[in-house]
Amino acid sequence: MQKNLLDQLIDSLQCLPSVGKKSAQRMAYHLLEHNRQGATQLAETLDKAMSYIGNCQVCRDYTEQDLCPICANEKRDAKTVCVVESPSDVAAIESTASYSGRYFVLMGNLSPLDGFGPEEIGLPQLAKVVIENDCEELIIATSATVEGEATAHFIKSMLQEQQNLKVSRLAQGVPIGGELGYIDQNTLSLSLANRQKI
Amino acid sequence: MQKNLLDQLIDSLQCLPSVGKKSAQRMAYHLLEHNRQGATQLAETLDKAMSYIGNCQVCRDYTEQDLCPICANEKRDAKTVCVVESPSDVAAIESTASYSGRYFVLMGNLSPLDGFGPEEIGLPQLAKVVIENDCEELIIATSATVEGEATAHFIKSMLQEQQNLKVSRLAQGVPIGGELGYIDQNTLSLSLANRQKI
Repeated sequence: MQKNLLDQLIDSLQCLPSVGKKSAQRMAYHLLEHNRQGATQLAETLDKAMSYIGNCQVCRDYTEQDLCPICANEKRDAKTVCVVESPSDVAAIESTASYSGRYFVLMGNLSPLDGFGPEEIGLPQLAKVVIENDCEELIIATSATVEGEATAHFIKSMLQEQQNLKVSRLAQGVPIGGELGYIDQNTLSLSLANRQKI
Repeated sequence: MQKNLLDQLIDSLQCLPSVGKKSAQRMAYHLLEHNRQGATQLAETLDKAMSYIGNCQVCRDYTEQDLCPICANEKRDAKTVCVVESPSDVAAIESTASYSGRYFVLMGNLSPLDGFGPEEIGLPQLAKVVIENDCEELIIATSATVEGEATAHFIKSMLQEQQNLKVSRLAQGVPIGGELGYIDQNTLSLSLANRQKI
């Protein structure tokens, strides 16, 4: 027997991350009771987004155009490229409003055991972008995890023949507002080693 | 300028209860990256659900049919009606598998200041159901709040001319697993007054 529509809706809502049966139920009842219009709008946008959003042909960020707004923006400095793991990292860096270069989105990290080799994270395309634009700086902003570091090192060695290219990595240290008592030892010893003159 | 599709999606997702900008972003990226098929399915179900789910003509529960599965089920005892505030209460009671009567869903509580009078919560229809089915018991399972109690009293007095009708209310007392030290005074004094012989 086919499930009734309400149960189908509750099942479908569980495709959202960290939404289980109880939350899905609450969402379904909320939408039916208070916001049918919003839900219909959501359905339409979801459908369109899933059909039309692809990857930028240059930087691999999500966009429904051939080029994402950042790559299409002539005012952004094409000589500086920031390499990030995911589109949400682009949004995070953009929200700081302190970077005016371009991006390159790996859509993951090097992880050969999971089948993520250099091809899968788009490194040949990154090399092409760097060479074609004659880039001056590559900021590798992968996570400060083992995989992120490995990816950063791989990119660094892949591009070592580019004489004019400065390859940098995000600064590591004590976060703003961080109390020393709560910072882990590794971060603390690193921030001590990399201390800066003021 | 029109927002891009990704931003539209992030905006639309915020119609879900307790989903703010940050969660909406996470959901959008998750769906785009890991579950486009699920999202398309969700879009379709949402759209259908919002268009077709209405209220049962008898009990006012959500259903896409004229009658909800419970009202349409001949095996459910039509002489016993449980009055609840919302469809989620029906689901909660159904999940106990210890009730075989029918339901009536108020879709709210009496709250004249908010414009919720007897008409809005369907009391004339409840009276009709009770009289037509010649009901024997009405279990009022509204919340144990001021509004819930007021609604229960109103229903009780509305139906006091039905000689054969027994009107009951959910038992109140110490919940299973409740430690006495953590139970509020009112509940405790009520459960003392209503103590039962064992």
